[in-house]
Amino acid sequence: MTGDYPQVSHNQLKRYTRLLDAKFRREEGIFLAEGVKVVEELLKSNWQVETMLVLPEKESYWHQVLLPAKDKFPVYQLNRSDWKRLSQDKEPEGLLAIVKRKEQSSLAAWMQSAEGNLLVVCEISNPQNLGALIRSACWFGFSGILLTTNSVDWTHPKVVRASMGGVFHLPVLTDIHLDQLLSALMKEYIVIGSDVHRGMSPRPLNQKALLLVGSESHGLPENILVKVHERWRIPGGNESDSLSLPQAAAIMMYEMSKHES
Amino acid sequence: MTGDYPQVSHNQLKRYTRLLDAKFRREEGIFLAEGVKVVEELLKSNWQVETMLVLPEKESYWHQVLLPAKDKFPVYQLNRSDWKRLSQDKEPEGLLAIVKRKEQSSLAAWMQSAEGNLLVVCEISNPQNLGALIRSACWFGFSGILLTTNSVDWTHPKVVRASMGGVFHLPVLTDIHLDQLLSALMKEYIVIGSDVHRGMSPRPLNQKALLLVGSESHGLPENILVKVHERWRIPGGNESDSLSLPQAAAIMMYEMSKHES
Repeated sequence: MTGDYPQVSHNQLKRYTRLLDAKFRREEGIFLAEGVKVVEELLKSNWQVETMLVLPEKESYWHQVLLPAKDKFPVYQLNRSDWKRLSQDKEPEGLLAIVKRKEQSSLAAWMQSAEGNLLVVCEISNPQNLGALIRSACWFGFSGILLTTNSVDWTHPKVVRASMGGVFHLPVLTDIHLDQLLSALMKEYIVIGSDVHRGMSPRPLNQKALLLVGSESHGLPENILVKVHERWRIPGGNESDSLSLPQAAAIMMYEMSKHES
Repeated sequence: MTGDYPQVSHNQLKRYTRLLDAKFRREEGIFLAEGVKVVEELLKSNWQVETMLVLPEKESYWHQVLLPAKDKFPVYQLNRSDWKRLSQDKEPEGLLAIVKRKEQSSLAAWMQSAEGNLLVVCEISNPQNLGALIRSACWFGFSGILLTTNSVDWTHPKVVRASMGGVFHLPVLTDIHLDQLLSALMKEYIVIGSDVHRGMSPRPLNQKALLLVGSESHGLPENILVKVHERWRIPGGNESDSLSLPQAAAIMMYEMSKHES
């Protein structure tokens, strides 16, 4: 019962609130993961929970998810106004984990073992879009995500939230210098660059594929696009329409995951 | 120049702030449309602007868009703290239109003239998802959107924002009773129901098609799904993965808009 969980202390709350800042997440080696579905996926994974926070009034939402695991980590309760300081949600589900960061595997070691398709995200700043991309990449069985330098930190609470826990199932490798790495990747993968202006229609691919996407506002730099094996554009639209990045990327991932009949 | 625009009055601000509430939008016959791209699409459309609001410090963002049209409606400036009361954006672009509602065409009249594919959205509550659906439907050249009873109001500021102005190009018909209308629609269209659990893979369709989607959390009611011509599911995922509604719907719209070769 909720009565069993102690109130979070002032100092704890202060520490957790700082986790909204990427610098503190790195320094403290922890990050926030909010939402029932997100925590459910976390608990199925091999990621470690430092602490779990709950909002008592939402117990009916999180009780079932927390029940089998609650002895494995400390659980604290927060009141609604403290919750708001940590939460991304207007209507919070009342479950929030403090998760321990893991060491990132080396790119070389990881590439040797990677079997499936790969998503490479280039200089993205919108955390919701990155979370949505991770969620879709999970659905389509991608083996991982490479994130270039100058991208939003993937442990941002909004990324974790929007990924619906996908971040706990799919390795994300960060600080990738794409210009240095592209030719090596092109030997291993058929490399597809997403472009809003021109390109062929997406098609099923019968080999290991790598999808390269840029930010919604800037797209991929032209010096990268000229090098890729195929440049894809989603058919449709006119000059005034636009397709959102997560939607365009989901369509491309869907198409490249099809097997040609 | 910004200096030309008068400050918005206290009473005006009070009236506009009320537009966050669906009831007041209906009573006043106006709604909010925020963002440079959104207003750009509005100004290209036949929708009427009642008033335009600007945030002076962001003039470099909106100056070009407003310039050709600024004599057609009154323009007022707001300061940053007043802006926050109306805005959906953490980093606002400083351009917000008060738009006059239009009379909705009758379903019968509209169906006679509708040429392309149709999207029917069933009991959706998330305004961002509805906006994203409208944006994608525009991209794929759909002829309109039907919105069932118990759905979020499409003039919600977050719907308009997420549609990227798509609401000004695509007719949205509301208060649809799907159970009463489905058999009539099934005579005119091949009706596809989206389902997360089971169904065939999406395929290109060579006839006028209607895509039926439910909310992300509840999906379509089974009594509707048993009646549709085809039930579609996006291949991929396992029981713990999930694909977001806007992504799944975009893939289905993409596939049904393809012409079979």
